[in-house]
Parts: sequence; C-alpha cells; structure tokens
Amino acid sequence: MKAFQDYYPENLAHCYGCGSHNQHGHRIKTYWEGEESVTRFTPEPCHTAIPGFVYGGLLASLIDCHSTGTAAAAMYRNEGREMDSLPPYRFVTGSLQVSYLKPTPLGRELEIRGRVKEIKGRKVVVECSVFADGVATARGEVVAVQMPENFGD
Amino acid sequence: MKAFQDYYPENLAHCYGCGSHNQHGHRIKTYWEGEESVTRFTPEPCHTAIPGFVYGGLLASLIDCHSTGTAAAAMYRNEGREMDSLPPYRFVTGSLQVSYLKPTPLGRELEIRGRVKEIKGRKVVVECSVFADGVATARGEVVAVQMPENFGD
Repeated sequence: MKAFQDYYPENLAHCYGCGSHNQHGHRIKTYWEGEESVTRFTPEPCHTAIPGFVYGGLLASLIDCHSTGTAAAAMYRNEGREMDSLPPYRFVTGSLQVSYLKPTPLGRELEIRGRVKEIKGRKVVVECSVFADGVATARGEVVAVQMPENFGD
Repeated sequence: MKAFQDYYPENLAHCYGCGSHNQHGHRIKTYWEGEESVTRFTPEPCHTAIPGFVYGGLLASLIDCHSTGTAAAAMYRNEGREMDSLPPYRFVTGSLQVSYLKPTPLGRELEIRGRVKEIKGRKVVVECSVFADGVATARGEVVAVQMPENFGD
C-alpha cells in the first residue's frame, strides 16, 4: 500500500521529516486506519533527550510531518479523489503545538495517531498523539495550510 | 565565554539538540546578550523542507533547546548564582508552540533570540523568535519545567 508521502511530487520529496529522497532524514510513512492516520517510527539511538528517552524535538518533527501529510490526504478524501489526481493538495505548517505528557522511552517503535479536527478553506487542523508501548507520551496540534503557489518568493 | 549548555551535567550532555556529547546532534550554544538569550546555528543542507528552505521540525528543535537552556540560565540569574553552583537547575519541555511566519531560507546562519516571559514556581515560560538575515521567520513559546528528581521512573 502506498503511503501519503509516496504521492508527494519531486519538490516535496526532499523534506527532512518525510521526503523519500532525503537520505539523512526520517522518511516517515503515513497511512489511514479508518478515521485515523497512523505513522510508525523507531527513533535512532542518537535521538536522545536524557539517556533512555526520546528527544522532544524529534517528536515535534514527527508530529509536524505526520500532520501535514494527514492534512493533504484529508483534503483529497474530502473530495473523494485519489492522491495522485489533479489539482494537487500540498500543505505546509502554519503552527505546531506539542504537549509533552511524560518521558518517551527510546529503543522501540513509536506510533503517531492523528485525526482531522477541522477543514476550513485552505487550512486543516490535525490533532495527534504519540504512543510508546500503547501509552500516550505527547499530544500535538498542527494547523496545516495549503502551500501557496508563490511559496518562498 | 562558556555557553549555558557547557554547564550541563553529564546526564544532560547527550541531548540531540544541545548535548555536547551527542556527535550526531545539533550541539547548540546559547548565551546572554543583555536581557535576551541568543543561539546562532547554521542548518545543514539536509535540513530541508522545500528545496532552499529550512525544515520546520529543525526550527522547533532549536526553539525547544534554546528555551530550556534559557530557562535554566534565568533561574540561576534570578537568584544571583553562577550556573555551576548548587543546587542545579535543569529543565525539560512541558509544552512547545511554534508559529511559522514565513519560509526560512537555507544556507545561512540563523539567530534564535529568546526572552523570559514568566518565572512561576518550577515553570519558566520563554518566548523566542528565529531570524534569518535579520527577518523573523518563526516565533515560539516554550513552557519549561524544572526536571523532577524521579524523571523517567
């Protein structure tokens, strides 16, 4: 099954968090599981905060890219379209909020589960949680914004 | 001049964002400049979002570690103590909020400037901005919490 990120066009495939062409990055893969979007990711030993626990900046990064991918997938699904159909929907992060509920243990696969809270015009609000061994250790909310045509101009 | 992070004890020197012992990490260095705390950091080419622009997850990571470092330094300063005096003040991130104001250009040094908004008991609220070529491209707020003795138990 293709992940959301497998549909990203060339110019979005270099992202450190989710670009399949970024050899140094996280290359996350996100899928629908019913109404929820799910990413599974195992941090590297270097992704340490305090020894034995996962670096919060990595969790913020996973939440970020998981959510922008979910936002894009949700917009297609909202219109009953496949992700490789035109016009393309691509999102960037407008804002990111993360609450760290408890230390996240290192050395195992994490699960990021997301849900679309709101679609409003060019914005999609995604809320998600990070789970380790089935326990929620961080909660995030991302306002994803449809990428403007003139991004970076 | 020693940076805030140079005073971190061994168990806090492995953090991917700010630990001097993490060979794979960012190893940021933060200093006071008057009332503001300042970190200067040049992203690697791999820290890409869209080609030519910095990955938002990296900016969140820089804001995170810049702010926990500022929180610790602020607590010492608040008591008129040096950062190597006892008892030690070490902070973890309770929550992180980042607003992405505009794309951050890659290939130059960024400046993260922070300011203590509030010190209340074991919590320090730090607000900061990321500047590229003197232009603010992201704004963040971190609630840093004094690390509990039983962290991770």
